[in-house]
Amino acid sequence: MKENNFKINEHYLKTAISDIKPNMISTRGYNQEELIEHISFSDMIYLLLKGILPSKKDGKLFNRILVSFCDHGATPPSTQTARLISSSGSPMNSAVAGGLLSFGRNHAGAIEKAMNLYQNAINSLNLTDDVDIDNQQIVQLAINIFNSYNEKNKKFPGFGHRYHDIDPRASKIMDIAITEGFVGNHTKLAFTLENLLKDNKNIRLNIDGVNAALLSDLGFNPKLGLGIFMIGRVPGIVAHVYEESIDEEEFRKFCDLDDIIFKD
Amino acid sequence: MKENNFKINEHYLKTAISDIKPNMISTRGYNQEELIEHISFSDMIYLLLKGILPSKKDGKLFNRILVSFCDHGATPPSTQTARLISSSGSPMNSAVAGGLLSFGRNHAGAIEKAMNLYQNAINSLNLTDDVDIDNQQIVQLAINIFNSYNEKNKKFPGFGHRYHDIDPRASKIMDIAITEGFVGNHTKLAFTLENLLKDNKNIRLNIDGVNAALLSDLGFNPKLGLGIFMIGRVPGIVAHVYEESIDEEEFRKFCDLDDIIFKD
Amino acid sequence: MKENNFKINEHYLKTAISDIKPNMISTRGYNQEELIEHISFSDMIYLLLKGILPSKKDGKLFNRILVSFCDHGATPPSTQTARLISSSGSPMNSAVAGGLLSFGRNHAGAIEKAMNLYQNAINSLNLTDDVDIDNQQIVQLAINIFNSYNEKNKKFPGFGHRYHDIDPRASKIMDIAITEGFVGNHTKLAFTLENLLKDNKNIRLNIDGVNAALLSDLGFNPKLGLGIFMIGRVPGIVAHVYEESIDEEEFRKFCDLDDIIFKD
Amino acid sequence: MKENNFKINEHYLKTAISDIKPNMISTRGYNQEELIEHISFSDMIYLLLKGILPSKKDGKLFNRILVSFCDHGATPPSTQTARLISSSGSPMNSAVAGGLLSFGRNHAGAIEKAMNLYQNAINSLNLTDDVDIDNQQIVQLAINIFNSYNEKNKKFPGFGHRYHDIDPRASKIMDIAITEGFVGNHTKLAFTLENLLKDNKNIRLNIDGVNAALLSDLGFNPKLGLGIFMIGRVPGIVAHVYEESIDEEEFRKFCDLDDIIFKD
Repeated sequence: MKENNFKINEHYLKTAISDIKPNMISTRGYNQEELIEHISFSDMIYLLLKGILPSKKDGKLFNRILVSFCDHGATPPSTQTARLISSSGSPMNSAVAGGLLSFGRNHAGAIEKAMNLYQNAINSLNLTDDVDIDNQQIVQLAINIFNSYNEKNKKFPGFGHRYHDIDPRASKIMDIAITEGFVGNHTKLAFTLENLLKDNKNIRLNIDGVNAALLSDLGFNPKLGLGIFMIGRVPGIVAHVYEESIDEEEFRKFCDLDDIIFKD
Repeated sequence: MKENNFKINEHYLKTAISDIKPNMISTRGYNQEELIEHISFSDMIYLLLKGILPSKKDGKLFNRILVSFCDHGATPPSTQTARLISSSGSPMNSAVAGGLLSFGRNHAGAIEKAMNLYQNAINSLNLTDDVDIDNQQIVQLAINIFNSYNEKNKKFPGFGHRYHDIDPRASKIMDIAITEGFVGNHTKLAFTLENLLKDNKNIRLNIDGVNAALLSDLGFNPKLGLGIFMIGRVPGIVAHVYEESIDEEEFRKFCDLDDIIFKD
Repeated sequence: MKENNFKINEHYLKTAISDIKPNMISTRGYNQEELIEHISFSDMIYLLLKGILPSKKDGKLFNRILVSFCDHGATPPSTQTARLISSSGSPMNSAVAGGLLSFGRNHAGAIEKAMNLYQNAINSLNLTDDVDIDNQQIVQLAINIFNSYNEKNKKFPGFGHRYHDIDPRASKIMDIAITEGFVGNHTKLAFTLENLLKDNKNIRLNIDGVNAALLSDLGFNPKLGLGIFMIGRVPGIVAHVYEESIDEEEFRKFCDLDDIIFKD
Repeated sequence: MKENNFKINEHYLKTAISDIKPNMISTRGYNQEELIEHISFSDMIYLLLKGILPSKKDGKLFNRILVSFCDHGATPPSTQTARLISSSGSPMNSAVAGGLLSFGRNHAGAIEKAMNLYQNAINSLNLTDDVDIDNQQIVQLAINIFNSYNEKNKKFPGFGHRYHDIDPRASKIMDIAITEGFVGNHTKLAFTLENLLKDNKNIRLNIDGVNAALLSDLGFNPKLGLGIFMIGRVPGIVAHVYEESIDEEEFRKFCDLDDIIFKD
């Protein structure tokens, strides 16, 4: 008998997302005709990812998260990658696919890291579902995170922004979350951690950090963090690729001979 | 002096999509804070792609188009590609990117072809903006298209569906378009062409075909056809990749030794 | 009975490339153990693509073609795309995949276009296999191509280079082809066309153009043009991604705020 | 002063791979004309990746490693992904790129893991360059690895094969390595570990495992493991995509309605 062997998968696919029969398509138990007629695109996304429709309040928040991810101009490497690929004459889907491949450890990875950070911290308290955490506990968790990252000299995921001292998207969503009563345990923790980091290091939550906390309060698995970000950002990338493709210039390069230094 | 030479691009990027300044982000002239607070994700997409916000009526239609593209279960090759890549342990963005690469000539290409078909036909009439085409002209255009495709034995883009005699999404959107007064010139042409094809070949508009007509009436360039489809479909692909990644099975393959025939 | 319908593929794969049985792998009829022991990588590639091993002379030429495609420093958009993706912390395979997506209409597309051009021209003569074309015919074909491209003001595929008046790789391979007796009909046509273009437009064959002619003489289908180019270029891209990944810099961008012009 | 901030890269690229000047291309200090005339494709790859040309003996081994990676028929998920994408009508480069995206944690990841395993073990001995390790030390390292993986119930990277009890490529390369005097410290360790695993678990080195050891003896960084594998495998993927594209079938799917199980 061998070990280290590989399972041979049987030849079928199981899925709980959509059921397809001749002349019938249903998603998560709802007939697609009804969904097309009645729900918003952002609720449809929530339904696809969570398996249930959001409450009105949750749907409103999720919509805002998606809007806030939509575009950061031509500055992100992913957007520049997509434009670079498009300028070489590749089709729209290749350019967008290439843009997505730029979401690596240093770009857009912060959402999942921050979701893991907040969810692991809150989970460590073993709360029962309906109990609200008390503020003392939150402060202690934030201090623990602060100390642990400081000791290891690690970057705090979801904090700081290349171009903005105060990320205007993050501030806006934080304001709305407070005004509309959306501050769950994960968001409380994020806000508390921000207070520590503002005072001690002069850095604040960025849009990834705030949304990571809110998505955690909405019950999303950290494994979906990058996926939700991509759903939000693909429209921006499509807009940039389209702009690039109708532009008169061809064959963009970001460095030309004079910008390339040969060092042997 | 040489010909056939290549332009060397200068080192800058021009964009009209978003303006980024320290602590300030605006898209198409609107402050992102305002957009986050007030508009739906689907209106944000419209704004990114068209440069202006939709009217309430246009926004409602555009939202339905996006919802209708969201998912067709595990049947599309793109979704299967994404799940296949995910099952080999690649990250979410690689799996989604791979899925997008499956949108080729035979899959999702119909939207742009249909948009070109309808827009070229309508443009050929050189209508001034505010004149409604008369029904005689529409019928004639449809007959011309029908004959021309038949002679060359070409597939009608946006017609027929692998699994559905009647694509339930297409019927639903057609009903809504009629009820809510959304039948512009391109859609009239599509419906007229469908009548010919229903009678003569027993095939009907599918979701790509109907949406191609409606997007044309909304004023979208055919070059954006695949982009809008991808924006609509990425949520479905993300849901499938997530489902695959939390599933217990590893390393899916669609053919195993017994399914592979070696022919020398 | 419906038309415009789609075939449902049966669930199997036919292949003539390699035969896999437990503890046995053979490629194009040769046991892989023998291939590993006895043949060069470039002969193995020839075998995979053509189904037969090359003659010693053909193998030598094919090897040179592959070497000549290997690297053009950090200047190509594909290489820059791959480095951009790598600098965002994405894995090696994502960066290389992104680089490949840059081979569009304006970059690396010339090989296939040139192969089609030469092969269509030569095929139009309906030569029997063993007859050598006479020089008058070649000259006439070249003149026809020259006039036809000029009239339509089209770029000649495989001619001219952004950085080189004389592409040193192209000159070298042309010299070798002449010295070693490698000038078949397609290459004769390419050389004749070059004479016209040198005199009239001061442009010469680049490496894509020469290799397109030689690959045509070797009997490769134009559909393999980009594939062979990619096989040759992937080593260079891997070297660049590796260099980028061990470099100290993170998160490269080709345009920063000052390089991005917002035009509303 | 802020922390957690991001460096803004200056706008240039440094590279030591190739130097490009008008009408001059040199790679790693060698004029490309000379390389094209005189060296094999596999030596060129070695030069690109290591910065120096191989000795005759090392070059021969490296060539065999590349040949051994070339193709495993239509069985690998990466090859199936590439064929799936091609069958939807996407271009060659998209299909190959999609195939590469399938090299995840569960597929082709073993090479880098095995290189790290062997190199970390050998490095732990702090040998000076010219000292050969003694067999007692090797055996002890192998036992340590064996125990440590067993305790954690981890898969041994580079061991076992889905279809082969004895991977014929691995056996062949091992034979050649022994006959031609190619067993350095890393390979000794791999062989010793195999003896333990053969006796205790009835599993053997596969092609990834043997090549990981040999590449380590050749001095390659583990970060290049997947890159070298891809260079070897891309020719096979190109051959499969070409075969798929000239095949009569369109729009392959690996599961059809009957193979998809909806579980709500």
